[in-house]
Order: sequence, then C-alpha cells, then structure tokens
Amino acid sequence: MTVFETAGTLYLLDALIAKAGTVTPGQTGVLEVIEQWDTWRPILTTLAANAAGVQPLERDRLEWLPAIPNPRKIVCVGVNYRDHLAEMGSGAVRPERPFAFIKPQNTLLGHRQTLWLPPVTRKVDWEAELAIIIGRKAFQVAAKDALKVVAGYCPFNDISARDWIADLVPGLGQDWILHKSFDGFGPLGPLVTPAEFVRDPQNLAIRLSVNGEVKQDSSTANMVFDIASIIEYFSSVMTLMPGDIIATGTPAGVGHGRGEYLKDGDKVSLSIECLGELDTEVRRR
Amino acid sequence: MTVFETAGTLYLLDALIAKAGTVTPGQTGVLEVIEQWDTWRPILTTLAANAAGVQPLERDRLEWLPAIPNPRKIVCVGVNYRDHLAEMGSGAVRPERPFAFIKPQNTLLGHRQTLWLPPVTRKVDWEAELAIIIGRKAFQVAAKDALKVVAGYCPFNDISARDWIADLVPGLGQDWILHKSFDGFGPLGPLVTPAEFVRDPQNLAIRLSVNGEVKQDSSTANMVFDIASIIEYFSSVMTLMPGDIIATGTPAGVGHGRGEYLKDGDKVSLSIECLGELDTEVRRR
Repeated sequence: MTVFETAGTLYLLDALIAKAGTVTPGQTGVLEVIEQWDTWRPILTTLAANAAGVQPLERDRLEWLPAIPNPRKIVCVGVNYRDHLAEMGSGAVRPERPFAFIKPQNTLLGHRQTLWLPPVTRKVDWEAELAIIIGRKAFQVAAKDALKVVAGYCPFNDISARDWIADLVPGLGQDWILHKSFDGFGPLGPLVTPAEFVRDPQNLAIRLSVNGEVKQDSSTANMVFDIASIIEYFSSVMTLMPGDIIATGTPAGVGHGRGEYLKDGDKVSLSIECLGELDTEVRRR
Repeated sequence: MTVFETAGTLYLLDALIAKAGTVTPGQTGVLEVIEQWDTWRPILTTLAANAAGVQPLERDRLEWLPAIPNPRKIVCVGVNYRDHLAEMGSGAVRPERPFAFIKPQNTLLGHRQTLWLPPVTRKVDWEAELAIIIGRKAFQVAAKDALKVVAGYCPFNDISARDWIADLVPGLGQDWILHKSFDGFGPLGPLVTPAEFVRDPQNLAIRLSVNGEVKQDSSTANMVFDIASIIEYFSSVMTLMPGDIIATGTPAGVGHGRGEYLKDGDKVSLSIECLGELDTEVRRR
C-alpha cells in the first residue's frame, strides 16, 4: 500500500488513482508515478485541493510497504558524516570521493514492518539516513543541476550486522555487502515527500531513538559530501533511473561505537524533519 | 528481444508466445517466464517438438538484449578462482567465505551490444564468468538442495575499471562498487540455457579472447567455492528471487596482470561450454 502526503494531507495513492479514473487501481505502481510525475502532479494536486469527498485515512490502520518497493538500485554512501567517521575508528580523514556500496532489494521494509534479527548475527546496528529518491533518468549531471533530478526524500535505516564485516581476502579490503544485505536491513518510509515540499534538504534535523532513548541526533548539514556532489559523482559512473534510491550516510550515534546492538522487542524510531517518522519493531525468532 | 535455446534449436521467445496463443506478444518478460517455468516448460517443449511451422531465426539479424534485462539483484563473488587470486597479487590465500559485491542493473548489456569505454578510465578490463540464474524464491537453502533453485546458466563478463578501485578511507577497505558499476560493464548472454541442458555446471570450459587472441582459458572446475556453496552462503543472508543473477568469479588471464586493457575497436568473445558465445564490441567515443 503506497501512500503519498501532499499539502499536509495523507491520501492513499490507489484511492486517488481510482478517483481520477484514469487507470485501474492496483495497476500503477509508485515507479510509474515517479516516471510520469509531470502527469501525476496536477492530478494529485487537484485531488488534494478537493479533498472534502475523500475519506481521510487512519494512519494507524494502514499496512505500510517500503516507500519504493521495487527500485532498480539502492546505492549508499559510507562514512559520510564527520562525527560518524570519527566514532567508527577511522580517524577524521575525509575520503577523497564518496565511498559507495549497494544494498539489494530484499533489504527493503516498510514503516511499522517488523525487522527480524537473523540468528547468525548478534551485532545488528542502526544507521539513520536521508534517502534521495531519483525522479528522472540522469547521466553525468553537474552538481549545480543535481537537485533537479530528485523526486523526493525519505527516511532510511541502513541496518548493518557489525560482526559480518570482515577482511576475507588480505589486501582486498572488507566485504561491504553481506553485512548490509540481510532481508529487512533497509527500512524505507513512511513515504516519499516530493522535493518541492522540502525547503533545504541539506539542513534537516535527523534523529533516531531506540525504546524512546535518543541515540542519533544530528543534521544533514553535517554530511562530508552533500546531496548535489553525491548525485554528480554517482551519475558520472552510472545512469540513475526514476525510483533509484541513494542513501547519504549516517551521523554519529550508531550502537557499535558503544557496544550496543538491537535486541528482541526493541522499538526503533527514525525521524527526519519534514519527512516524517519511520518506526521499526525488532524481533528475534 | 529474449531468446531461448531448447533442444538445440533457436527460437524467438516472443514468437513462441504468439504461437502458443496464451498471452499477447511483448507482455510477458523473461522474469515472468522464469517465475512460471513449470507452466512455460511444457509449452516451449511442445513448440520445440513441432518446430516445422516456426520460421527459424537468423542469429546474425537479431538485436540481442541482456539475457535478463531487469533482475532484482546481481550478486557477484570476487576472487573465486585459485589462479586468478594468485595473479591479482593476493597470494594463494583461500578466502574463508565467498567475497561478495553487487553490480547495479545499468551494467547489463546484451550479446553483440557495444561496450562504450567511459572517458574517465583508461584501465577497463575483462572478467569471463559463469552466471547462475535463480529460478525460485529461496532462503536458507542447503548446498545439497542448491542446484534445485537454479533456472539456468549464462556467460557473463564482469567488466572492471582497475584505476577506479581505491582505498578511499584508511582502514575501511577498497570501494568494490564503482569500478564495476559503469553503464555496460556487465554483458550477459547470449541466452539463458535451462539447467536441465547443462550436465555438470562445475565442469565447463570457460574461455575469453580479445581480437581472436585467447586471454582466459580455464574450467569452472577451478572455482574456490562451488556453485552449491555460493548459493547456500548467499541464501543464508538474503532471499534469492527468480531472475536473480549470481556471478561466480573469473579465472586467471585478466588484462590487469599483464598491463593490458580494452581499447577502441576491440572485439571480445567469451564462450562457455554448453552456454554459447557472448560477443562484445568495444568502442571509445
């Protein structure tokens, strides 16, 4: 179930589509809406302006899927906040270029969906991140034009199993993939806020708490490489496509630095200013 | 244009589907065929047995797309042949576990499609690999059952820009993503050979030549971790889905070891016993 927030009011996208009468409900996914945003935006805006006839949704009764359930790729920047770089034991060295890794689609989880701790790890950690949702096919975009290819922004939790990062082959570096690739290791939601409603994505408070205790409390102003630079750099290598997710790194306050890890029953709440709150319940089977 | 080889005869999948009359041509993609293989297999087999009425295709006149154009994920094993491990300067150390990385979808290229060398690298190298195509949703599969979740096999070229692998952050290891993520850095084809037609995937000759000169000449028998172990290991972390691609590593003979890289006009030919030949023309703009 995909939901959009427009002008402060929550609507169920499928309901809107049904009301618009242009397509059959359920046949249009969020990727298509993003790809055809120029068509969809006026329809959604008109519907939002005439919301009297639409039954307001009760957020508590929705079942939320990942904000983008089927992206073509999820590219992430590692160690992109100065304070996090320090706490991970790498000193205060600024990387020359954004450090990239990719998460697979099976990691995605919706708001309020359950993160099941895999039995093979005891060090599952949180990482609050701002996710960029790409809106247009883009290759070799200059930083000054980079924000124009953004559809919107969304909270993202780059869950990581710290005991699965290891130097498997001397000299070849750590395996950055598997410890971040378990099913459910990428909560994304609650919804995508279109870029036009986010005044300055580079100045948003970003917070994460576990069972009500604040663990991460920073601002997207503290990124090493900013959103525009990241898009310029990644798009110099690969063509970005509508619905692609770029996660921009996490600030200080992950559990690993203090020997704390997620456990059965934990409630994680990740909030980013303007973008809402992404809740995840942690369970161990 | 998706092609299948069945019982030694080449058919155009769309033509088969049209003849079968069950769906409209063009509406069924290869992911759906793989997902519903139990339904499709008898249809394709019957059509293959009654091939008299089907116009044989001229391979030379086809435009080939990637064998799987839209996989959910492409997971790769690095340094998985003993001889390649040695030539890459890592000594003969056997990794404890398969070393994983992920390639994004924008890397995929079909048979005979052109690989355009990016202007930002001068060290583009080849890596002939056997790709496993997953046929069934699979999680925590034991090695003894692993081959049952395989739909088929396909030649894959894990193209890599050697001058883009760098230790960006001291202590965190090399960035294994971007140097393998440029558009077109993953030729996959010419087609998927269903597993039932491959007697022993662990004993196939694998060869790569550039302009007719043999560079790689090995056997899938030389893998460090075999196909079943790789599937067991990866499926212990992530749910594998139909159409997922797992690349199993490359044998000795990549260009980097001898200071050779791909250049404008090169013709790369990658062949794996039973699976056909994947041709790539290299161009620099």
